[in-house]
Amino acid sequence: MKAVVRRGPKLEVDKNFELPEPGPGQVIVKTLCCGICGSDLHALHHLDHFAAIGQRSGALRNLQASHDLVFGHEFCAEIVDYGPGCSKTLKPGQNVVSMPYAVGSGGLEVVGYSNTFPGGFAEYMVLQEDLLLPVPGGVDPEAAGLTEPLAVGRHAVNMARLTKNDVAMVIGCGPVGLAVIAALKQDGFGPVVASDFSAERRAAAEMLGADIVIDPARTSPHARWQSLGVAATLAEVEAMTLQGKTGKHAVVFECVGVPGLIQSIIMDAPPATRVIVAGVCMSEDTFEPAIAINKQISLQFVVGYDAAEFASCLTSIVEGQLDTGLFLSGSVGMDEVSATFGRLENEPSSIKIMVKPHQ
Amino acid sequence: MKAVVRRGPKLEVDKNFELPEPGPGQVIVKTLCCGICGSDLHALHHLDHFAAIGQRSGALRNLQASHDLVFGHEFCAEIVDYGPGCSKTLKPGQNVVSMPYAVGSGGLEVVGYSNTFPGGFAEYMVLQEDLLLPVPGGVDPEAAGLTEPLAVGRHAVNMARLTKNDVAMVIGCGPVGLAVIAALKQDGFGPVVASDFSAERRAAAEMLGADIVIDPARTSPHARWQSLGVAATLAEVEAMTLQGKTGKHAVVFECVGVPGLIQSIIMDAPPATRVIVAGVCMSEDTFEPAIAINKQISLQFVVGYDAAEFASCLTSIVEGQLDTGLFLSGSVGMDEVSATFGRLENEPSSIKIMVKPHQ
Repeated sequence: MKAVVRRGPKLEVDKNFELPEPGPGQVIVKTLCCGICGSDLHALHHLDHFAAIGQRSGALRNLQASHDLVFGHEFCAEIVDYGPGCSKTLKPGQNVVSMPYAVGSGGLEVVGYSNTFPGGFAEYMVLQEDLLLPVPGGVDPEAAGLTEPLAVGRHAVNMARLTKNDVAMVIGCGPVGLAVIAALKQDGFGPVVASDFSAERRAAAEMLGADIVIDPARTSPHARWQSLGVAATLAEVEAMTLQGKTGKHAVVFECVGVPGLIQSIIMDAPPATRVIVAGVCMSEDTFEPAIAINKQISLQFVVGYDAAEFASCLTSIVEGQLDTGLFLSGSVGMDEVSATFGRLENEPSSIKIMVKPHQ
Repeated sequence: MKAVVRRGPKLEVDKNFELPEPGPGQVIVKTLCCGICGSDLHALHHLDHFAAIGQRSGALRNLQASHDLVFGHEFCAEIVDYGPGCSKTLKPGQNVVSMPYAVGSGGLEVVGYSNTFPGGFAEYMVLQEDLLLPVPGGVDPEAAGLTEPLAVGRHAVNMARLTKNDVAMVIGCGPVGLAVIAALKQDGFGPVVASDFSAERRAAAEMLGADIVIDPARTSPHARWQSLGVAATLAEVEAMTLQGKTGKHAVVFECVGVPGLIQSIIMDAPPATRVIVAGVCMSEDTFEPAIAINKQISLQFVVGYDAAEFASCLTSIVEGQLDTGLFLSGSVGMDEVSATFGRLENEPSSIKIMVKPHQ
């Protein structure tokens, strides 16, 4: 089949890439569309490091950076055929989404970060039948393909265990930050503060319902806490305590993932802020624990989602609960994927670009 | 009065140190005993840095490193006299403990880290009447003086919000770690794993009820998780998920505070570990966020306690709910404080040394 293959630090279009035989309980699907993720951009150039970080964490245990790899884990696809032992509840032609996992001889693999299971930047994939979720007819496959990135935001919000007494700020309005905003607004939380250097992304944040949208090049996103009812300093906490008042609490979603950002939040966010770290900083980072201690900051690192979170995002899309068009910045064919990676690295204002392998 | 005064990076005994006039609602107390805290050891040599970290956090806003300072914030004292406007509910001669706060012209000060309010390494202190808690007759002042360090452990345990499905590990069995163990066992949690390089501290941990006590020079404290029902790696988490099982969860109390320890916990602790960071690392630290993300670690930094936590620790002491003798390594007079600081810096096996200013 035709696939965009990572070979060394380059993406090559290969017209004869081999699709694995579907094993027991597996299906062959035709890829309708698949989003490009920020992790793919990093992994293209630094797959050795990406695989090493995974393996040192206990994840991506079979990934070999030196072997061929087809990226793509945010997909919508159509059922084509079945391996042995399938229940065939869903029929050929049915559109589906799936968490990007498949079981190989070496255990669980992440589809799109596996040398065995090619991801969505290819004409076909092998998936687990029991992970498939049907996408009703009439639902745009590109919208359904947002299930995975939306689930990342849904999971981050669930992990924050927010109450109505919390004020949420989202730092970084790329796909992860926007998915967080969507989940926050779906849950009825507000005000939601959003911050991004890109005017295009700030506009998307606002359209998704962010109540206060900040350009951090002009104003610190942390300048607003007091006006939102959050004691912004230990002196303000003490003053409120002496008055017998308790303020609201700050919850900051870090959706960027660059070195130094966690320390800047520790420094600038209010005491007792809960930081949900969803942005993936791949390099070593430095911070000052004593300041985090004096302010009783918490850092909850999050990744992925569970099956219920994934399914709930498909439901949101199917029921039209959010404007998926806000996430979709355009689509490309397989021949354009390599150039598109280059463009996204240099121009981070796009949100989600979908690859359409059959375009 | 006689006081042990920090002047530059030295402790000097001053026989003519001035006690401030008690302001409205303040009392003069005679210091019966006061524990030496690890923070005092650091602050003796690095008060500039200690004050700067405090001030950058929004704390210790009036502390001037270049001015005289009397350490000591873990005390038991006896009421001597009252300032204006006191209710005098507690009578002279009554033994008391108090959270170490006093209100000066510049706002709240921490007694023992204040240029205005001398701490417990002096014959007398000025405290807030409304913070005093009476210590019943018959309770050893040295035991009552443990209220403050015990409250630090109680607060750390409360912040962890443990359930019976959690397995707690305490790294570092100095006063903070032992106070954590005491609070865990008082709440009925177990098994509690404790780790320390010092045999003396391990023995104290065991006597306080730690169920598994580890010498990290011989065995990694993280080697035991699987046997305690906690999935120790992402592979084990996946295997349990596929079997429809959910394991117990790891909660690690970091009670040491040295650079690199947080990263070692991120690397070696199980996925989804909640780390309660109570050890105060005063220097910059480095870690790998991507590994914390892949494992969904959380870091809850904690400090201090609230009034209810402080009071509950006095109650525990008064009601004989824990063997305070395990914490008490000895006492010294004011003339020995400087030498004792030197000894504690080089020999970390002692637990709590009490200074008795009137000895």
